[in-house]
Amino acid sequence: MVGIGRLNHVAVAVPDLEAAASFYRDILGAEVSEAKDLPDQGVSTVIVRLVGTACVELITPLGEASPIAAFLERNPKGGMHHLCYEVGDIIAARDDLIAKGFRPIGSGEPSVGAHGKPVLFFHPRDFCGTLVELEEV
Amino acid sequence: MVGIGRLNHVAVAVPDLEAAASFYRDILGAEVSEAKDLPDQGVSTVIVRLVGTACVELITPLGEASPIAAFLERNPKGGMHHLCYEVGDIIAARDDLIAKGFRPIGSGEPSVGAHGKPVLFFHPRDFCGTLVELEEV
Repeated sequence: MVGIGRLNHVAVAVPDLEAAASFYRDILGAEVSEAKDLPDQGVSTVIVRLVGTACVELITPLGEASPIAAFLERNPKGGMHHLCYEVGDIIAARDDLIAKGFRPIGSGEPSVGAHGKPVLFFHPRDFCGTLVELEEV
Repeated sequence: MVGIGRLNHVAVAVPDLEAAASFYRDILGAEVSEAKDLPDQGVSTVIVRLVGTACVELITPLGEASPIAAFLERNPKGGMHHLCYEVGDIIAARDDLIAKGFRPIGSGEPSVGAHGKPVLFFHPRDFCGTLVELEEV
C-alpha cells in the first residue's frame, strides 16, 4: 500500500508564465510566488498559494447526455478534467470575470453543483487551458 | 478581483469508477467515499479524501530539452499536467507499485524534484490517465 498523503500540488503547464501568474494574482486575487527557474527540471515555476484541504473527485458519465462523455472519448484512459475553486459570492465573481472578457460556459447562470451549492464553469481558453468550476461556499 | 479561496477539488474523469475507486483505495491507500450518482450533473462520483493544503504550480519550459515542451505543443493554451502526492518513503512506495505492475517514468530512481525532495513520476496509463509525481516528505 503506497499510503499517499497530501495532494502537494496540481501542476498546470502554461506557455507564458508571467501572464499566467498575473492572471492568478490580478484577476483571481490569489497569492503567487516569484518565478523560479529550475534548470535541472527544465522548467520555470510560480506557486499559486491556496489554503485549505483539497480532494480529488473521480467522475464518470451517468446517463446519455453526460457532459464528460466527449472528454472520455478523447481520453479513453481518463484524465484531469477540471479544477474547482471556492468563491464567497459567485454572482460577483462571475460579473467581475465577464467584465474582464472571460466566458462562462452555458447561460452564465449558476446551477446547483455536485455538492448542492451554486457553481459556474469557465472556459479553459481563459484559465491557462484548464476548465475551471467556481463554487460558492 | 474574484478572490478565489480553497482549491475545492481536482476532478479526474475515469471510464470505470469502481476500478478507479479501488485503485485509489486499495493500491494508493487513500480513503474514498461511496459512489454517488448525480443525475442532474450527468455523472457518478467518488471522493478521494486527502488532508492538508494543496497549491497550484504553474510551470513553463526552461531550456531546450524541457520535459513539458511537447505537452505545450499539443496544448498551446496550457493545461493540467500532473498531480503530485506526498508519500513517507518513496523507495517503499515505488517498490510496492512496481511489484503491482505500475511503471515509473525513466530509470525508476528518484530524482531531486522542484522542492529539493526525492520525486518519481508514474505513467498516466496506470493512474486514471493522470501523470502522477510522488514526492517524499
